[in-house]
Amino acid sequence: MPQKTLKDIAEHVGGRVIGDSEILIESASTLDSAGAGQITFLSNPKYAPKVKKTHASAVLVAEQVETNAAQSVTEDPYYAFMQAVVLLHGHREHPNTGVSPKADISESAKIGQNCNIHPFAIIHDNAVVGDNCQIYSGVFIGPNVTVGNDCILYPNAVIYDGCQIGDRVIVQSNASVGQDGFGFATHKGEHHKIPQIGIVVLEDDVEIGSNAVVERGTLENTIIGKGSKIGDSVTIGHGAKIGPHCLLVPQAGIAGSAELGHHCVIGGQVGVVGHIKVGNMVTVAAQAAVINNVPDGSTLLGAPAVEANKGKRAYALIETLPDMRKKIRTLGKEIDKLKDK
Amino acid sequence: MPQKTLKDIAEHVGGRVIGDSEILIESASTLDSAGAGQITFLSNPKYAPKVKKTHASAVLVAEQVETNAAQSVTEDPYYAFMQAVVLLHGHREHPNTGVSPKADISESAKIGQNCNIHPFAIIHDNAVVGDNCQIYSGVFIGPNVTVGNDCILYPNAVIYDGCQIGDRVIVQSNASVGQDGFGFATHKGEHHKIPQIGIVVLEDDVEIGSNAVVERGTLENTIIGKGSKIGDSVTIGHGAKIGPHCLLVPQAGIAGSAELGHHCVIGGQVGVVGHIKVGNMVTVAAQAAVINNVPDGSTLLGAPAVEANKGKRAYALIETLPDMRKKIRTLGKEIDKLKDK
Amino acid sequence: MPQKTLKDIAEHVGGRVIGDSEILIESASTLDSAGAGQITFLSNPKYAPKVKKTHASAVLVAEQVETNAAQSVTEDPYYAFMQAVVLLHGHREHPNTGVSPKADISESAKIGQNCNIHPFAIIHDNAVVGDNCQIYSGVFIGPNVTVGNDCILYPNAVIYDGCQIGDRVIVQSNASVGQDGFGFATHKGEHHKIPQIGIVVLEDDVEIGSNAVVERGTLENTIIGKGSKIGDSVTIGHGAKIGPHCLLVPQAGIAGSAELGHHCVIGGQVGVVGHIKVGNMVTVAAQAAVINNVPDGSTLLGAPAVEANKGKRAYALIETLPDMRKKIRTLGKEIDKLKDK
Repeated sequence: MPQKTLKDIAEHVGGRVIGDSEILIESASTLDSAGAGQITFLSNPKYAPKVKKTHASAVLVAEQVETNAAQSVTEDPYYAFMQAVVLLHGHREHPNTGVSPKADISESAKIGQNCNIHPFAIIHDNAVVGDNCQIYSGVFIGPNVTVGNDCILYPNAVIYDGCQIGDRVIVQSNASVGQDGFGFATHKGEHHKIPQIGIVVLEDDVEIGSNAVVERGTLENTIIGKGSKIGDSVTIGHGAKIGPHCLLVPQAGIAGSAELGHHCVIGGQVGVVGHIKVGNMVTVAAQAAVINNVPDGSTLLGAPAVEANKGKRAYALIETLPDMRKKIRTLGKEIDKLKDK
Repeated sequence: MPQKTLKDIAEHVGGRVIGDSEILIESASTLDSAGAGQITFLSNPKYAPKVKKTHASAVLVAEQVETNAAQSVTEDPYYAFMQAVVLLHGHREHPNTGVSPKADISESAKIGQNCNIHPFAIIHDNAVVGDNCQIYSGVFIGPNVTVGNDCILYPNAVIYDGCQIGDRVIVQSNASVGQDGFGFATHKGEHHKIPQIGIVVLEDDVEIGSNAVVERGTLENTIIGKGSKIGDSVTIGHGAKIGPHCLLVPQAGIAGSAELGHHCVIGGQVGVVGHIKVGNMVTVAAQAAVINNVPDGSTLLGAPAVEANKGKRAYALIETLPDMRKKIRTLGKEIDKLKDK
Repeated sequence: MPQKTLKDIAEHVGGRVIGDSEILIESASTLDSAGAGQITFLSNPKYAPKVKKTHASAVLVAEQVETNAAQSVTEDPYYAFMQAVVLLHGHREHPNTGVSPKADISESAKIGQNCNIHPFAIIHDNAVVGDNCQIYSGVFIGPNVTVGNDCILYPNAVIYDGCQIGDRVIVQSNASVGQDGFGFATHKGEHHKIPQIGIVVLEDDVEIGSNAVVERGTLENTIIGKGSKIGDSVTIGHGAKIGPHCLLVPQAGIAGSAELGHHCVIGGQVGVVGHIKVGNMVTVAAQAAVINNVPDGSTLLGAPAVEANKGKRAYALIETLPDMRKKIRTLGKEIDKLKDK
């Protein structure tokens, strides 16, 4: 395991050292578990008491704290921690397979420089794959798909025909991008498939989680905006537009033609119904059901979703409904007695 | 792009032209986006004002409307639109791979005429695949599976041993059909797997979405009725029976041994508990929890699910619980004052 | 179909026969469907009337009941039924492919005795697979993964680098184990991937359902305890710890760093938020939202989840909110009238 001095790390993250800058760090860990040779971080002030008792050799902090560990003070300690983890552990190293002769690559496909195309990957006619891409086994890149530079497609990810993928996009295992939208014309009791002629566009720096599904558009494209991260098992309906820099936590579902602004955070198992507009910087708590347009900057919770401040208390009061009902009955009886007097 | 005259299209959909029947149409689009050379449709009368302002060259309508576009009047304009999209754009054209020597096909399997079996597809012992099927890469067709004619199995779809698939069935990418049901006998704190000896039957014209899962039955078969469409990431429990012509929107879950009638529409993220009967033509709103038998023709919403008419208002009132609680307290105090008098 | 006498079956399950012990049984079925030559079971006493009318040749019961069928009396009839199904039908027989030359196995990987490694399976550098394993087509076993003995990995299951799998583990089709946790450091509006340096540990006798996702840990490992069964389309967040012998029903979601004790039963579509502790032997009803620590032995329901006894009535009362609201208004008016007097 390569070691770094705290000084090295502090320089890398732009931090100021308090304490022993020559102390050796070999790995990163959590505040609870970190021990000698490890670095941790404090970003939420409520955990400050834990820093006081940490056995870590060093801690990344936003301002000097009371602790025996050496400190690196930096503006955004969680971001600094991410940088430290990259420095110490690195991102995944990909197998250096080159373009495997066991992959099935169409003669009309174009593959960039320095790609690893694993055995049993499929690249169809007229597909284009940029430079430095990792295309794992079982990946399907359909006809006319374009994949930018520095992309990683993990095993068994499927990209249907014609979809467009930007640079530095990651698609995790078993994800499906560009499947037919759930669009049928029902006529005399039978459901007839409407050809889904839109595609899916994954802009730069998007990540799609394992087993997530992004449907292609019926007539217009489904778009995942730059830098947005889609969690595992999320589904995105046909023609939905997800703005840039959103986070969609696992198992969320965005129905067809819904639109999200930028920097939205959609909690796990949330449902957003179709054809509504969710503004910018909207946060939705887990399991909520968003059924109406949402103004910029809102924080919502509940099913149906309401503004979080009032909603939190409201949903917590469901538990008291039997008491409320009883109380109402009691009041009714008391009123009847008063009337009788 | 091939062009059609409005007359051609109107004949194809059985419509009556109002306006220029020779106008050339090359593609289909939405009411909002359609421009010159495009055709759109009006099926929901509330969008009629948009038709008045559309830049489309033609519009499919149920009755004559005020618009500058040429019109084709037809009984079911959404169905006509589907037909027009098929005419103009067609369904997906599948790569003409023939039976790839890179597929792995058992000698005892039977493959029909005119099939495309892509590289790295697997067809196991005694499996039968009908005519005109598209079996994409990474598809697994287990031992003794039967697949009818004109089926499409998209990349990495898995059909476990013994399952039966009718004609014109579509299974989208990464879907799993016939995995073991979630059935365990718990004895002295350990969960013992019960062999799942039922199969999955997908009747004619069924579609299974990407990453959806249909479990095989424990003792009786799991059945998806003719023409039913199962959205992406839906899960169907062991032994469930889905009637014909149902729509199950993405992420819905139907637990084991539940039964749905015909023409049910189950919203996204809905849960239906096991061993209950949902009648015919039942509609369930997104995220609802259906925990009891449901009579024919019901419309439900909420968790727990209740009849929609009263449920909609009831669930909306959760938000007012803090006010209700306060009001009850106030009434209590006023009554106390009255008593004191 | 091989036949067994009821005597054979009773001996196998440790039961005492009442009636004809020589009667021939060839298959197992449900109480409703079983006919001549079939065995069924009664574990829930409420179905006793059905046993009276069953056409089954034999029934497994906990104590003697009134029926024309022969009976085998045993302590735990559902467990006995599982044993009888195994005796009569057996578990799935796996294709005997041996180590296929069409699989892609690294020279540095170690494969145990008696394994079937199917065509187009991938086993990467330094991976270890134990004895008697079934590795189906399209399975990806990443670098440095270890798989124990007697494991079954169904088609297109993906095990990311470094994950550790115990003995007798089953991973169903299209499941993803060890994908990157949903961990990003957001800095100046952009989300930066934190390397996920933990792994996933699946202890002995774990089963992972089709299309389920288990994320690897950010810094600490994600652990699924011995004997736990994870349903299809379940997602387990990074660093979560699931205790031994839990059942997680399909579509449940456990967020990052949540901890579950032993013998928990988590219903379908349940959400458990991150960083909380759920005790031992906790049962959570379908679709509930668990947002706080849960003591041992609790039974919860609802969103937000509350103790089941009071919760069941509380959630059912949501339906009455319009009435309650009306009643409160009426009381207010009556009080006003009383005041006026």
